Amino acid sequence: MKNLTSPGLLLDMAAFHALFDTVAAVGCTPLGGLNRVAASQEDGQSRDLVCAWLAQRHFKISVDRVGNIYALLTLADPTAPYVLTGSHLDSQPRGGRFDGAYGVIGACIVADAMRTCAQQQFSHNLGVVIWTNEEGARFSPSMLGSGVFAGRYTSDFALSRQDVHGVTLAQALGQIGYLGDSEAPAVPAAYVELHIEQGGLLEISNAGIGVVEGNWGAVKYAVTLRGTAAHTGPTPMEQRRDALLAAAKLVVACRAISDATFGKLLTSVGRMDIEPNSSNVIAGSVTVYADLRTTDNALLIESSLEFERAASTIAADAKIEVDLQQVVNRSAGIFDAGLCTLVEQVATAKGYRPMRLSTIAGHDAIALCPLCPTAMIFVPSKDGISHNEAEFTSSTDLEAGLDVLGGTLHELLRKPLTP
Amino acid sequence: MKNLTSPGLLLDMAAFHALFDTVAAVGCTPLGGLNRVAASQEDGQSRDLVCAWLAQRHFKISVDRVGNIYALLTLADPTAPYVLTGSHLDSQPRGGRFDGAYGVIGACIVADAMRTCAQQQFSHNLGVVIWTNEEGARFSPSMLGSGVFAGRYTSDFALSRQDVHGVTLAQALGQIGYLGDSEAPAVPAAYVELHIEQGGLLEISNAGIGVVEGNWGAVKYAVTLRGTAAHTGPTPMEQRRDALLAAAKLVVACRAISDATFGKLLTSVGRMDIEPNSSNVIAGSVTVYADLRTTDNALLIESSLEFERAASTIAADAKIEVDLQQVVNRSAGIFDAGLCTLVEQVATAKGYRPMRLSTIAGHDAIALCPLCPTAMIFVPSKDGISHNEAEFTSSTDLEAGLDVLGGTLHELLRKPLTP
Repeated sequence: MKNLTSPGLLLDMAAFHALFDTVAAVGCTPLGGLNRVAASQEDGQSRDLVCAWLAQRHFKISVDRVGNIYALLTLADPTAPYVLTGSHLDSQPRGGRFDGAYGVIGACIVADAMRTCAQQQFSHNLGVVIWTNEEGARFSPSMLGSGVFAGRYTSDFALSRQDVHGVTLAQALGQIGYLGDSEAPAVPAAYVELHIEQGGLLEISNAGIGVVEGNWGAVKYAVTLRGTAAHTGPTPMEQRRDALLAAAKLVVACRAISDATFGKLLTSVGRMDIEPNSSNVIAGSVTVYADLRTTDNALLIESSLEFERAASTIAADAKIEVDLQQVVNRSAGIFDAGLCTLVEQVATAKGYRPMRLSTIAGHDAIALCPLCPTAMIFVPSKDGISHNEAEFTSSTDLEAGLDVLGGTLHELLRKPLTP
Repeated sequence: MKNLTSPGLLLDMAAFHALFDTVAAVGCTPLGGLNRVAASQEDGQSRDLVCAWLAQRHFKISVDRVGNIYALLTLADPTAPYVLTGSHLDSQPRGGRFDGAYGVIGACIVADAMRTCAQQQFSHNLGVVIWTNEEGARFSPSMLGSGVFAGRYTSDFALSRQDVHGVTLAQALGQIGYLGDSEAPAVPAAYVELHIEQGGLLEISNAGIGVVEGNWGAVKYAVTLRGTAAHTGPTPMEQRRDALLAAAKLVVACRAISDATFGKLLTSVGRMDIEPNSSNVIAGSVTVYADLRTTDNALLIESSLEFERAASTIAADAKIEVDLQQVVNRSAGIFDAGLCTLVEQVATAKGYRPMRLSTIAGHDAIALCPLCPTAMIFVPSKDGISHNEAEFTSSTDLEAGLDVLGGTLHELLRKPLTP
């Protein structure tokens, strides 16, 4: 077995923590979390900080039409293919400071180490990427920037997405100076993303590194229920067309679909947009955002149909109009087997305990998967908590993840070019 | 029977329609409704318009600490008691243009007619009043300005109420120039409010004038359910503490409490504040705004306890913390019997078909009820629709209401002073 401990690659962990903390301060919430939704002023400031850091270190920075940032580093023949690594800087409205930012800043540190690792002969060039609107908190759908890169969505579709105030992604990116006009780089030779697990499997299993084998399937819906706004007082019960009551029944029904599978299918409703959302007015319209997730593609299809039937039945019973849209429909999939093995070998060689698992959450890496060999490296999340200000990963675990990302990229960058 | 047709009192219906339409244009929505929530810029503009109209006609205008506007007219001995008439100019976010504004502008026209009705000997003076935040859409609770006037709330309590953005009523009133410092007038000799019915009884009964005998009881709650925000993806179902699921169950339970009374008790949830309300995050906290209304005070107490038990049970089952606050608790009550009879007699004398009914909706008149003899005059609402942009009352019905308000006030203002 070859030496996978990447000798000569010196990761500046002090620089990692310094940059991580600086970026985590932008949009920091009182409870130590983050409110840095996509293309907000805070998102813009965090992008500025990371870009300045990279520019200082001679990375060539460009921004594509949907605000994805590419910081490229020529390590080999300038015409040689690139390996990309990165993640996202946007957060949930009350998210944690590790989700996404860890993968971006980890990528910066590792890439900078490659730059100064002058002894090596590299066959590939390296790029750090920051994807736009991974979270889908402000603009729907999630993984929008990486989705455009992968050809799943057009730039025009992405740029026309609106937040709840009717601001388009194009307007918001323009306001923070990240509505770029550069061409995105060509399809990379490989994409590797470092991320926190956002679940509790690694911690429970006492594993330090997660090797992501595949992703769960997910179907997401935006279901708009339209009744009639009316005074909560004088309107007789039998005359009401109460959109919020119908929405509540749909939330309960959505949970029941999961319960019937004993938790094999995960279902959630995290968001409802209620109009006019006034205590003295029966809601005229409610949009329910539901998601269904499982590893079993047949179960996913069956459960989605069941959810759609439930929405129709509830709406019909309440004399409510229903408009059901599938916002996301991705099958369970597998990541590149060769890269999985490589990550596992590097982690083992460096003395960490790797564990194979699947990601239930969506990630930019899932968008990249159909495009090129893709890998994800997970580090443990304390108590599995994520999308919460209490999200936490220890410095030891963070540094281990960087070390494995460094080793993995070090191998990939030196891999002989396939003719 | 004396002559109750108020000869010599000339109501300028053209002026009524002109002022009504001018005011209805402020905050007008594309569908012909109103978005003019309390102490908004639009509320300020509509106040400015009405105050300018009154000032031009020599009313003496003052604004109290919570923004209630009083436009006083000396018709008798300046030390004689006042009769007050008025309503509110604030609306629901997508409300109708008749709710409240009709009573204010009707009061202006009738009061101006009294001013020019010089032949008469009046024993009382007259005031037009515009109450702050009747709707409770922006600041909770509703009937806040009239509640302060009636001594139900302190000014400090009212001024410290916050909207969803954390703006206090004091700040909002300051911004529109209606944070006054005048003393409110003394307790009036009587209060008469003209209003649309917001229900369908008058229309169904082919009655033109509603004589409000009393009000339904109402208990309103703000129930905050606190779980744990978490990623909708990787969090296993059994670990979730989903505040939105608990809220949905409470909405369904609240409706079931009404269903068990076959509609004798009305229950509604029109508003939920969901945190963080992001599609990929299990809600950490949801506040549910529920109301229960009935004419039967015993049923109201019993049903309120049932609602509170339901909230506790649902929260306990979901391992959710619950904080339940009663925001409003008003018993079913009766309006002044003598005034009811007077309104009925005036309506009959003028050739309208009066009908006695109770108000299910809250009104400023209900706040005034414990303070002084109080009456409400209703006119029909087309299809009973209110708190909706489609709210409508015909010009004929509007003018009939003005006519009856005029006649009623004409009698009250000339009534001998009780020693």
